Amino acid sequence: MDWGTNLWDQNDVIDKHTQAGLDLLERYIKFVKERTEIEQNYAKQLRNMTKKYSKRGSKEEQECKFSNHASFQEILNELGDYAGQRELIAENMTANISDKLTKYLQDLKQERKTYLSDVKKAQQNLESSFKHLESIKKRFAKEWAEADKATQQADKLESDSNNSKIDVDKAKNHALARMRTAEECRNSYAAELQKYNKEQNHFYYTEIPQIFNKLQDMDERRIRQMAEGYCQFSHIEKNVLPIISKCLEGIAAAGTKIDEKKDSKLLIEQYKSGFERPADVEFEDYSQGVKPSNSESGLNPLKGRKHKIFKKHKITQAEKHMVLFMFSMI
Amino acid sequence: MDWGTNLWDQNDVIDKHTQAGLDLLERYIKFVKERTEIEQNYAKQLRNMTKKYSKRGSKEEQECKFSNHASFQEILNELGDYAGQRELIAENMTANISDKLTKYLQDLKQERKTYLSDVKKAQQNLESSFKHLESIKKRFAKEWAEADKATQQADKLESDSNNSKIDVDKAKNHALARMRTAEECRNSYAAELQKYNKEQNHFYYTEIPQIFNKLQDMDERRIRQMAEGYCQFSHIEKNVLPIISKCLEGIAAAGTKIDEKKDSKLLIEQYKSGFERPADVEFEDYSQGVKPSNSESGLNPLKGRKHKIFKKHKITQAEKHMVLFMFSMI
Repeated sequence: MDWGTNLWDQNDVIDKHTQAGLDLLERYIKFVKERTEIEQNYAKQLRNMTKKYSKRGSKEEQECKFSNHASFQEILNELGDYAGQRELIAENMTANISDKLTKYLQDLKQERKTYLSDVKKAQQNLESSFKHLESIKKRFAKEWAEADKATQQADKLESDSNNSKIDVDKAKNHALARMRTAEECRNSYAAELQKYNKEQNHFYYTEIPQIFNKLQDMDERRIRQMAEGYCQFSHIEKNVLPIISKCLEGIAAAGTKIDEKKDSKLLIEQYKSGFERPADVEFEDYSQGVKPSNSESGLNPLKGRKHKIFKKHKITQAEKHMVLFMFSMI
Repeated sequence: MDWGTNLWDQNDVIDKHTQAGLDLLERYIKFVKERTEIEQNYAKQLRNMTKKYSKRGSKEEQECKFSNHASFQEILNELGDYAGQRELIAENMTANISDKLTKYLQDLKQERKTYLSDVKKAQQNLESSFKHLESIKKRFAKEWAEADKATQQADKLESDSNNSKIDVDKAKNHALARMRTAEECRNSYAAELQKYNKEQNHFYYTEIPQIFNKLQDMDERRIRQMAEGYCQFSHIEKNVLPIISKCLEGIAAAGTKIDEKKDSKLLIEQYKSGFERPADVEFEDYSQGVKPSNSESGLNPLKGRKHKIFKKHKITQAEKHMVLFMFSMI
């Protein structure tokens, strides 16, 4: 089923149809570019968000020893990788679809233009041959009419006996000469007609069908390229799905491995002072010669300190050895 | 390993640690909300794009008979479904993570506030008991000093033989009375001390450890909830992956089923005129009595038309039957 044979008289249809095909290709390229921008924007937003929440201050690093803090950081890392995969989708869509098809579209546009211009040239050639044939045909008609008229005049002179033989012979010779010229024109017209019909035959059976078949081939190549581009649109994303799945598994794993008991224990390990709880306050028996004292003085080196039930800061090892625990002053 | 026993003197550490825990929870909620917005925005952009490219004019419907046009529409439909899945991710993250954890955070904040206030109250009670004990101790010290002084004065009067027995007895009685009062203060101090030590014991061994253990339990509950929230962050997206995969398969299928030969054939079916190609132009032999004619007249009903090699419009069935093909006029 080829256009050359079946649509030989549908130049306009083929013109419009191949244009609509290129329009669709152009629309698809625009569509993929737009998708690429959306994907880039999406990846960028995800990446900015992961950076924003991955504050790496010394405080955060301290906290990251706790599994529930550490896992959040792991989730951010996984989401960063996830964003990287979305960027890869955008990059591959640009390289494997948009850029490729844009180049292809330019080539097809040029190719189509050439074919349509070939059709036009062939049309113009045939039209000009036809006009030439018409003019030769008209000349034959005119010459034949003149010859016919001259013959009739010669016959008329001959039938009138008043005319001299010389005049009759002169008219007869004139008519004969015209008839000879007319015969020549007839032969010339016949030859030109044969030539034209050969040309017309070539136009309808060879030249135009060949160009139309080239246009059909071009359109089918465009369709195959588009089909490939459609499939790529799916495959590029499908290719990153396993890695995206792994990122999601990494996030779930980060959630699963959180151990709240371990986190509670870690706090103890980091901050346990090791001090005994305060002993009972002793009886100060002034009746046995003990000098009156108040709680702000005595054996405790932390003299003058206010009564405090809890320390307000983490005690260092040095401090631990250096001071008597403040509770002993009570 | 419980905080109550091991971190009994680390109120400040526990205060800060549980606050950091709630801060992390709050940060995670903000993070999920931000991700949700990104996801919604992404879905919206995809949806708008599919709508923009799904122009449903009569021209597009006509073109959609061709497989390469139809498949593009299918891709747009699949991408619309895809966008729907991204919307679902956003919706489920809001419902199953953000909303849930926000409610939970409010409860935890209230609970923590209550515990820390309980600690403060217990501290204040113990401090005020201690102050009370101090004042009673001081009264005993003062009374004992007075009694001691009175006793010394009585002894001094007695050792001086110039003093009358009455004066000595008076001083002795006075000293005895003071000593009795001092003894009473001593007993009162002893009783108060016992009471205080019991209270202090309760504070350090029962009251504070219990509250700290409640804070530990609260913190561990928070961690478990967060771990669940981390896992949800992964599962919500993992749950839509099979449908997203199907959308991608649908896109690939739309690309694969494109048939360029069928599309070419369809154009023939739609536009084939069925006319024969023009026959040879016939010889008009004026020498055999044919009247001169030009191509703009003759048997063809399309009189006065310009010589055309291709039709410029699609011919209707009615036209097909009505007219003789214009080529016959050549």
